[in-house]
Amino acid sequence: MSAQAPHNTLLIPGPIEFDDAVLQSMSHYAESHVAPGFVKVFGETLTLVRKLFQSTNPTAQPFIISGSGTLGWDLVSANLIERGENALVLNTGYFGDSFGQCLETYGANVTHLKAPIGDRTSLEEVEAALKEKSYKLITLTHVDTSTGVLSDVKGVAQLVRRVSPDTLVVVDGVCSVGSEEIAFDEWDLDAVLTASQKAIGCPPGLSIVMTSGRAIQAAQSRKTPPGAYYASIANWLPIMQNYENNKPSYFATPPTQLVHALHTTLTQITADVPGRFAIHTEVSDKVKAAAAELGLKQLAARPECQAHGMTAMYLPEGLVPADVLPGLLKRGVIFAAGLHKEIATKYIRFGHMGVSVTDPKRGDVDNALAALKEALAEAKQAKGL
Amino acid sequence: MSAQAPHNTLLIPGPIEFDDAVLQSMSHYAESHVAPGFVKVFGETLTLVRKLFQSTNPTAQPFIISGSGTLGWDLVSANLIERGENALVLNTGYFGDSFGQCLETYGANVTHLKAPIGDRTSLEEVEAALKEKSYKLITLTHVDTSTGVLSDVKGVAQLVRRVSPDTLVVVDGVCSVGSEEIAFDEWDLDAVLTASQKAIGCPPGLSIVMTSGRAIQAAQSRKTPPGAYYASIANWLPIMQNYENNKPSYFATPPTQLVHALHTTLTQITADVPGRFAIHTEVSDKVKAAAAELGLKQLAARPECQAHGMTAMYLPEGLVPADVLPGLLKRGVIFAAGLHKEIATKYIRFGHMGVSVTDPKRGDVDNALAALKEALAEAKQAKGL
Repeated sequence: MSAQAPHNTLLIPGPIEFDDAVLQSMSHYAESHVAPGFVKVFGETLTLVRKLFQSTNPTAQPFIISGSGTLGWDLVSANLIERGENALVLNTGYFGDSFGQCLETYGANVTHLKAPIGDRTSLEEVEAALKEKSYKLITLTHVDTSTGVLSDVKGVAQLVRRVSPDTLVVVDGVCSVGSEEIAFDEWDLDAVLTASQKAIGCPPGLSIVMTSGRAIQAAQSRKTPPGAYYASIANWLPIMQNYENNKPSYFATPPTQLVHALHTTLTQITADVPGRFAIHTEVSDKVKAAAAELGLKQLAARPECQAHGMTAMYLPEGLVPADVLPGLLKRGVIFAAGLHKEIATKYIRFGHMGVSVTDPKRGDVDNALAALKEALAEAKQAKGL
Repeated sequence: MSAQAPHNTLLIPGPIEFDDAVLQSMSHYAESHVAPGFVKVFGETLTLVRKLFQSTNPTAQPFIISGSGTLGWDLVSANLIERGENALVLNTGYFGDSFGQCLETYGANVTHLKAPIGDRTSLEEVEAALKEKSYKLITLTHVDTSTGVLSDVKGVAQLVRRVSPDTLVVVDGVCSVGSEEIAFDEWDLDAVLTASQKAIGCPPGLSIVMTSGRAIQAAQSRKTPPGAYYASIANWLPIMQNYENNKPSYFATPPTQLVHALHTTLTQITADVPGRFAIHTEVSDKVKAAAAELGLKQLAARPECQAHGMTAMYLPEGLVPADVLPGLLKRGVIFAAGLHKEIATKYIRFGHMGVSVTDPKRGDVDNALAALKEALAEAKQAKGL
């Protein structure tokens, strides 16, 4: 039983449903951000981020900053690359476009490798691109929230180390961290940026960035000063180091309540990180099989390109999201409409992450699948399809 | 009676104690950031920000962004001034130094007019500086959290309009908005930036910036693109306009729970804005009189330089904060140590803002004054003073 007020079940690709304990942490009473109680919680939360990324390398450095996931792009673009240097963006949708714009804001020369909708760029194409020019960094969207396409982070990272070993590997993990496997050290990644409100299961408002020693070194050996102040690694690094060493420190006031909530959810998640990925895969398989049974094709056609925390499905010919979403809502279920500009009216998105997946007693996924079946039938009937 | 878990009373100059209803809003169940329910709440909250600033001019524009107060400096520095243009910083402590660094990060030429500790620069000096050079903008810290010095925002704004009418007047109101009078339109200000966790009485995690039509015009008529992506006015302006017009819109996921909490506290505050300033002045006068009775001198010597939401007091000769703060804590009261580098060990800071001031039934201020008296006597005795 949930302690929360009755409400429709939020099954969009973030924000997601919350565990009761996480939500209760949000109403923690007022605390000083430099008092021992909070310093300890913030320090532990940073250590839990390392665990979430399966990282034990002491040169790696997590950052937890008040902001949206988008802020992570600025942290990368203003610190890890300098004006006039080259960035390669593996573009699988809306979020690749935007990350590219952010990089350009700070003066990077951006090359996009655009994959067709629903697919990802092949390793051969990436290798060819890497051999053409010297890139300071390469970015890839682990799961593109607009299309549900899963990138091959491990494969790309291996390729980069072989072909262009100094290029920094930057992963936009906003829609993947907490539901897709990431082995930060083992895969030799340089930066993974994410947000609190997706598979991590915390309310929105935290930008979380994990960086390698190589990335920190790049930030510290810039020829020019960082391009931003609030998004400056130099300004935040001593703060994060101090808190993790249990010492208060001040650059900007941390969002104390959100940090408590993050602490609560990461404590739950890190109790069994591999188990978390396994259950997300299992439930995703079930959702995708059920969608296929309803005759719904996924945007991500090839199974290896399909995310495990969300499913983007084309609607049957003749239906638009506005035909189906109200029928879902009537049954207490909230899905999202399409987001990719070129095909937005042709598909819907179902987010299956966090507590809706890990707590089967809630019945969220089964209820959603049953509601989808009924809402689709209703919509088809209304349209005479 | 408070619904919160028992805890020591937080009387630092932010974060501050929360009203129960505000804290309950923090555990709002999961919602889509583009669904009608949240769109309405966010739109109303933007309108409430206008009311908080006593602004009715439709060309003025509020921004509510996930981030710390510090992010407001980037919003100003990356949008309202261009590389090579001049900024005049009226510097009354720690926060003037930092705002200057932020402006320089984005390429501004910064001139600091430093006031002696505990004082503010005279209007004559400001006038002389404005006549020497052409300034794109002037910044002043309304209340410097490190010293409790209150700036003359109205006087400076009038002066600027007379002497250098095109110069943008930018107010750092992190420690003033909600406890000090600000008449945004009437005083003809161009930007006031603040945060959620001080006199506004919301948990930390929101950067709130009010801008004039003149400021928006300056951002839109730049010769060069904005210096930041996450802190770009061009990226946020359509989002804020859409939400206030009840239309969903996406640039980055807003922190839905914090926005609910801000909505709750601003609804309370804007029920009587002049009354709010009046009670903060009344309680501040009482605190300052009590401090004087205990023989404690304020950092802000002249009454017209004294903030109404906090009091920074020198300790008696021979005592440091570590002699007094534990005695306060023992009595359930949390004050802050000094922050201004040159004199940090000589003084303590008492924040009296928000619900601790507006809800006398809590007894927060009276209890704190009684605890201060006892803790001081105890510390003096221990030191044989």
